[in-house]
Amino acid sequence: MIVLLKENYKEEQLENLRAWLKSMSVDVKMSKGSHQTILGLVGDTSQVDSELILALDFVEDVKRVQEPYKKANRKFHPEDTVIDVNGVKVGGGNFSIIAGPCSVESEQQLCTIAESVKKSGATMLRGGAFKPRTSPYAFQGMRGEGIKLLLKAKELTGLPIVTEIMDLSQLDLFDDVDVIQVGARNMQNFELLKALGKTDKPILLKRGLSATIQEWLMSAEYIMSGGNDKIILCERGIRTFETATRNTLDLSAVPVIKSLSHLPVIVDPSHATGFSRYVRPMAVAAAAVGADGLIIEVHNDPPHALCDGAQSLTPKDFDELVKDVMDIRKVVAK
Amino acid sequence: MIVLLKENYKEEQLENLRAWLKSMSVDVKMSKGSHQTILGLVGDTSQVDSELILALDFVEDVKRVQEPYKKANRKFHPEDTVIDVNGVKVGGGNFSIIAGPCSVESEQQLCTIAESVKKSGATMLRGGAFKPRTSPYAFQGMRGEGIKLLLKAKELTGLPIVTEIMDLSQLDLFDDVDVIQVGARNMQNFELLKALGKTDKPILLKRGLSATIQEWLMSAEYIMSGGNDKIILCERGIRTFETATRNTLDLSAVPVIKSLSHLPVIVDPSHATGFSRYVRPMAVAAAAVGADGLIIEVHNDPPHALCDGAQSLTPKDFDELVKDVMDIRKVVAK
Amino acid sequence: MIVLLKENYKEEQLENLRAWLKSMSVDVKMSKGSHQTILGLVGDTSQVDSELILALDFVEDVKRVQEPYKKANRKFHPEDTVIDVNGVKVGGGNFSIIAGPCSVESEQQLCTIAESVKKSGATMLRGGAFKPRTSPYAFQGMRGEGIKLLLKAKELTGLPIVTEIMDLSQLDLFDDVDVIQVGARNMQNFELLKALGKTDKPILLKRGLSATIQEWLMSAEYIMSGGNDKIILCERGIRTFETATRNTLDLSAVPVIKSLSHLPVIVDPSHATGFSRYVRPMAVAAAAVGADGLIIEVHNDPPHALCDGAQSLTPKDFDELVKDVMDIRKVVAK
Amino acid sequence: MIVLLKENYKEEQLENLRAWLKSMSVDVKMSKGSHQTILGLVGDTSQVDSELILALDFVEDVKRVQEPYKKANRKFHPEDTVIDVNGVKVGGGNFSIIAGPCSVESEQQLCTIAESVKKSGATMLRGGAFKPRTSPYAFQGMRGEGIKLLLKAKELTGLPIVTEIMDLSQLDLFDDVDVIQVGARNMQNFELLKALGKTDKPILLKRGLSATIQEWLMSAEYIMSGGNDKIILCERGIRTFETATRNTLDLSAVPVIKSLSHLPVIVDPSHATGFSRYVRPMAVAAAAVGADGLIIEVHNDPPHALCDGAQSLTPKDFDELVKDVMDIRKVVAK
Repeated sequence: MIVLLKENYKEEQLENLRAWLKSMSVDVKMSKGSHQTILGLVGDTSQVDSELILALDFVEDVKRVQEPYKKANRKFHPEDTVIDVNGVKVGGGNFSIIAGPCSVESEQQLCTIAESVKKSGATMLRGGAFKPRTSPYAFQGMRGEGIKLLLKAKELTGLPIVTEIMDLSQLDLFDDVDVIQVGARNMQNFELLKALGKTDKPILLKRGLSATIQEWLMSAEYIMSGGNDKIILCERGIRTFETATRNTLDLSAVPVIKSLSHLPVIVDPSHATGFSRYVRPMAVAAAAVGADGLIIEVHNDPPHALCDGAQSLTPKDFDELVKDVMDIRKVVAK
Repeated sequence: MIVLLKENYKEEQLENLRAWLKSMSVDVKMSKGSHQTILGLVGDTSQVDSELILALDFVEDVKRVQEPYKKANRKFHPEDTVIDVNGVKVGGGNFSIIAGPCSVESEQQLCTIAESVKKSGATMLRGGAFKPRTSPYAFQGMRGEGIKLLLKAKELTGLPIVTEIMDLSQLDLFDDVDVIQVGARNMQNFELLKALGKTDKPILLKRGLSATIQEWLMSAEYIMSGGNDKIILCERGIRTFETATRNTLDLSAVPVIKSLSHLPVIVDPSHATGFSRYVRPMAVAAAAVGADGLIIEVHNDPPHALCDGAQSLTPKDFDELVKDVMDIRKVVAK
Repeated sequence: MIVLLKENYKEEQLENLRAWLKSMSVDVKMSKGSHQTILGLVGDTSQVDSELILALDFVEDVKRVQEPYKKANRKFHPEDTVIDVNGVKVGGGNFSIIAGPCSVESEQQLCTIAESVKKSGATMLRGGAFKPRTSPYAFQGMRGEGIKLLLKAKELTGLPIVTEIMDLSQLDLFDDVDVIQVGARNMQNFELLKALGKTDKPILLKRGLSATIQEWLMSAEYIMSGGNDKIILCERGIRTFETATRNTLDLSAVPVIKSLSHLPVIVDPSHATGFSRYVRPMAVAAAAVGADGLIIEVHNDPPHALCDGAQSLTPKDFDELVKDVMDIRKVVAK
Repeated sequence: MIVLLKENYKEEQLENLRAWLKSMSVDVKMSKGSHQTILGLVGDTSQVDSELILALDFVEDVKRVQEPYKKANRKFHPEDTVIDVNGVKVGGGNFSIIAGPCSVESEQQLCTIAESVKKSGATMLRGGAFKPRTSPYAFQGMRGEGIKLLLKAKELTGLPIVTEIMDLSQLDLFDDVDVIQVGARNMQNFELLKALGKTDKPILLKRGLSATIQEWLMSAEYIMSGGNDKIILCERGIRTFETATRNTLDLSAVPVIKSLSHLPVIVDPSHATGFSRYVRPMAVAAAAVGADGLIIEVHNDPPHALCDGAQSLTPKDFDELVKDVMDIRKVVAK
C-alpha cells in the first residue's frame, strides 16, 4: 500500500500513523520528493483499511498495490485447484457441463430432462428448488420438495446435482446436494458465505450483477477463510446499459480470473444473454476462451408448453451445443 | 401488457395462449395490421410472466405497460404514506435526519455522538452493529453487543434507533430496535424481505448498487405483500464507471419515486460519495430535490483518532449541515 | 507517478527506464522493500504515458498520483474563473440561466420564447441550429438559417446566444455567436477541441455520456492548451443501467469539479432526465449543490402543438422554476 | 409503434394526433380496454419521433416495436453483405485479420511489422496516422506523413490498409486508403458519417464506448442513407464499472448483430482488454462466437523499446494467435 502525504503534514501526525501501522505489524518506508512525500507500507496490509487512512486530513491519496485476497490468490497457490464432485472433477483442464431446467416442476419433467442431458454429455444436473424472483407474485419454486426430486433424479442418472441456496436457514436441506449454488444476488450475503465456509461442500459462486472481479474473489475469500476451499466461480453476465441482451456476458473475466486466481471458473450463457438463440454462440466462445465449464438451462418440450423460459434450450439444441463445444475443446486443449 | 405476434403465427397457437391467459383472468384484445398483429392484455397482468410469453416461437415481442407493483404504487394509493417511528413521523412533509457513527465501537463513543447529533437536530440515531464488509479480514461489527449499546444510547437520548440486519437468523435481536435497515447488498435477499414482511417494524430499504428503481419498488412490494407497509426507501448511490466518487448518487430517483410510489424516500450522501467533503453539498441538494430525509455518518473526534471513515463528518460539520439543510427545507416546504 | 517493479527486475532494465524518464526531465526516487521495489517519479509527469511503462515486462503496476491536467487544475489556479459573455458574467458566484427551445424552428417561435424567458429571468438564450440526431431520418436542424434567427432574437432581446457546433467546418458561421456549445457526443472530438482552442469564444463543454470527470477536464485542457481559457463545463447526465430517466444526472460532479478545477460548471436537467416533470426538482437541486447555472429547454405552447419535446417546459413552468431556483440561491449564497 | 392513452383523453386531442400521423402516412388502429386505450401505429414509423408523442399530456407511454433502421436491417436484406476491399473479401463467411502497430512511427517500423504480419496470415494492415489521445500533451500521430508511410507499406506487401479519420477536413488525404476507420469517439459524429456516406470507400465503424447496439446500427444507417453500403462493424469493448480490463468486450454483440443486421462485424480484443496477455484468449473466443474477423495490434520488438503499448502483441505472439484462431475457424466454419 502506498500513501501520499499532503505537502504541509506535521511530523506528529506522521508519527501517530506510523505507530498505528506498527501495531498491525506494517512497516513504513519513506520517500521524500521536492513536492511530495510518499510512504510505502511493507508487510501484510490485507488488514489495513485504506479508507481509514484516506480520511486523515494530511493524506492526499492511498493506493493499494497488493490484492486484498490471499487464499484465492494464484501468487500464493500457483497450481490450479481441482475439485472432486462425487467423482466428477472440476478445474485443472477438466471441462464440466452442468445442465437442467430453470425450475424443478415435477418428477417427470426433471427426470426426463436429466436423462436427456446425461445422454448428450452433461456431467452434472442443475435445477432450481428455491427460486429468487424479483416479483413476490411469481412462482417461488418447489423449495424442499424440489430438492427431494433432484435427489431422485440423481439416483436415476448418477449425475451429481447443483442447486441454489437462498438463505442459511435452508442449509440442512442441502445435506445430500453435491454442489451448493450461491446466486448473483447473494454474492455479498456475507453471513451465508461464512456459514458455507464451515461446510465441506463444493460451492458454485456466481458473480454479482455489478460485482467487480476483485469483489467476487473477496467473496470466495470469505468462504475460504472459513476453511472451505472448494469454490467454483461462475461468470453470468454483468449489468450494463445495453438492452439487447439481459446482461452483458463478460468473457474477459475468464482469462482475468485465470491470471489472478487458481480457482476454476465456468460460464452461464443462459442467464447472461436471456435469449435461447444466443446461448450456443456464447457457450462455444466460453469454451474457446478457456472456461472450465458451462452451466446451461434445458427444458423439456411438450407441445403447447407455455412455461419454458425464453433462455432455455430444447434437448435437441443442447445436444448440438455439446457437440460444438467439444469440438472447440479439442482445439483449445491441444 | 402488449404482445406482438410474428406474421406467420397459427390460429391454434393463439388459442392456446388465449386460454392460458384466461386461466389467470386476463382478457385479450386483438388489433390486426397489414403486417403486424398486436394483442392487448387487459386485466391484472402482475402475475403474468412476460418472459414466458416472449419464449413462444410465434411471439415477436412483449411490452409491459403496467407497473408490476401494486401495494407500493401511487396509482392505487395516491396519499403519501406517513410512518410513525416511536412518535417521530417519516414522510408526508416531515423531514427526518438520521445520524450516527458508521460502526458502534463503544458505549462512550456511541453516547457521545448520540447526544451531540440530537443537539444538532437529528431525529433518529444510526449505528452499525452488524457490518457488511467486502473483506473477511475487516472488522465485522460488535454484533449483538452493538445492539445493546444502541439501546443504551436510545435510553439516554430518547432517539429512536436504526440499525442494519444482515441475516434473518438475527431477527430476534432486533425486538427493541425501532427501524430495521436492509442494506444495499440485501435488497434482493428475498427470504429476508419475506420475513420482514411478517413483522410490524418500520424497514429502511436501501437501493441495491445496481438496482433499477422498479426492482427497488418490487423489493418494497415483497415486504408489503407480507403485510408490513412501513417502508422507508433510501437512495444511496448506484454503481457507474465514474471513480471520483465511490458511487453515483442518483438524486433524480427522488422525484421518480415520488411520482411512482407513496412511500417516503430518504438519501444517504455519506455512503454514496465516500468523501466527507461532498456530504454537505449532496445533503443540501437532497433536501432541495424533495427527499423526506437524510441519513448521515458522524464520528466523534478525539485528537489523533485514526478510525474515522473518510466519509464521516465531525459533529461540528454535522451541526452546520443541519442548519443549511433546514434553511433549504424552509424554501422547499413553502 | 509511482511504478512498482516485479521482484526479478534487472538493473539494466531499470537503467533504461531511468534514462528514458530523464530525457523527459523526470527524476526517479527508489524505495526498496523486502518484496517490492517502488519508484517515485518526481517532476512534470503529465507527458509521461503511463501505459507505456505498464507495458514493460519488469513492471508490476503504475499509479498516477498527479492529475494529468494543469491549466484546468485548481491547484495551480486557486481562484474561480469568471467568464464575461458580452457583459454577462459566468462563474465566481454568478448564477447563469440559459433557456430556449430545443431546436430553432421559426423566427416567430424563437422570438416569442426569447422574450418570454428573458422576462422570467434568463440571462442567455439557447436554441439548436445544428441538431445531432441518432436517426438520419430525423429533423437535422435549420443549420445556417437557424443561426441567423438566433442572431435576430439576440438583437431583439439583448440576450447573448448559445448554440451547438457539430463540426469544425461550421466554425465560420459562429462568428457572432456568443457561446459555442460542444455537445456530449463531441466531447472527445479532439480536432474540434483544438480548433476551438484557437478562438477566443466562450465554450460550453458538455460532459460525454460515459465520460469520467477526469476525461472531461482533459477535454477542457485540450481547448485551454490552445490558448482559450473560457470554458463553461456542463453536467448533462451519464449513461447507466437505470431507464426511468433518460440519463442519470450526476450532481455530485458539481462539488467534485469545484474541488478539482477553477472552471465554472452548470447543469442541464432537461436532457439528463428527459421528462419535463423532473426538470424543476433537479434544477432546484443543482442550485442547492452549488452549480454556477442551468441550461433549460423551454418551448412555446400554441394549442395542439405536437412538436414540443417531452423534456421541455412551458414558459409558465419555467417562470416558476426560476423563482424556486432564485429562492434556493439566496440560501446557498449566504 | 404503440401509443397508450391516459384514461381521460379527449376526442379532439386524439383527432389532432391522428391527423399529424396521417400527414406522415401512418395509420392508427385503436383498441379500447376498460381502463386503457391503445393505439397501434401502422406504416413506416421510422420517421415518427416517439419522444414528441410521449410529450403529449394525454399520452401515458409510447413503445417502438419496429427497429428504427432499414438499410442495415437483416429483415429487409436477409443475405450477408460481402465487401470487396481491393480483392480481399469481408463478411459472408470470409475471415479477415487486420494487424499492425497502434501508431505509425517510421518507415522501418511500419514495413517490418507489415511484412511480418503478412507472413503470419494478416489480410490487411492497420496503423494509426491520426491518433485520438485523451491528453493534449500526448503524441498526436504522424498525421499526413503517417498515411504516406502506410501507402509505402501497402506497395511493399500488397496488403490493403486501414487507418482512422478524425475529422472530415482530413478526407482528401484518404484517397488511396482502402478502409477508413471511424473510431469509438466519432461513432456519433454525424457530420463525418454523412460525408463518408457520399464516398464509396469501405468504412470500419467502431462501436462507441457507451453505445447501444441499436445506436451503433443507426450510425451505420447514417452512412448507408448517403449511399455507401460498405460498412464493417467493429466491437471494441464498452465502458462498465469493471477495472480489471480497460473496457468490457461485449462478445454477445456478435450474435446480436448477426441476428439484426446483414453487415459484417469484426472484433478488436487489443483495445477492449488493454492488456496483451488477454488478447489471444479473447481473439480465439471472437472467432468461436462467429465474428467475421479481428483487428489486432502488433508491435516490433527491438531490445529496450519503451514505446510499445501494453496492449500490443509481439510478432511471435501474433503468429501463434493466428494459428489458434485458424484452428477454431475450421471448427466453426464446418
